[in-house]
Amino acid sequence: MNRYTIEVRITPRQGLLDPEGQAVLGALRSLEFEEVGEVRVGRLIRLALEARSAEEARERADAMCRRLLANPVTEDYRIDIESVS
Amino acid sequence: MNRYTIEVRITPRQGLLDPEGQAVLGALRSLEFEEVGEVRVGRLIRLALEARSAEEARERADAMCRRLLANPVTEDYRIDIESVS
Repeated sequence: MNRYTIEVRITPRQGLLDPEGQAVLGALRSLEFEEVGEVRVGRLIRLALEARSAEEARERADAMCRRLLANPVTEDYRIDIESVS
Repeated sequence: MNRYTIEVRITPRQGLLDPEGQAVLGALRSLEFEEVGEVRVGRLIRLALEARSAEEARERADAMCRRLLANPVTEDYRIDIESVS
């Protein structure tokens, strides 16, 4: 088995409201960061896992996203894999 | 002025407890994802902003992290910049 580090980036789907992003935008503007036009807030999840191959690691991470980590109706996710020697 | 998309990845500092990561790890294990060894949960913030240069965009994003987005005691952050034509 090999060890992998997986990074999952979960973001609210384009076109859906993102109240947390709106709140951060308001706070940045009140701090005079007026050049900011849009803010979206998502989650970043780093996992350490064992798998036979990078392909298997990606498949397992994808299953984790579908079953637990991401909400498929409201969120998109992207998986990046790094192998750990 | 040019338009940039900034991605900020905020993660709990190494060595600090991450209760949310522990909770996700427990949930993954109970779903029989037993190959997962560690989970850390952070935030992903995407900003659209205007700046004269990529360097200025990075400086402004760094100031936003220090003043609002990240907790400098408990979190690390990484800034990636993409220019939008």
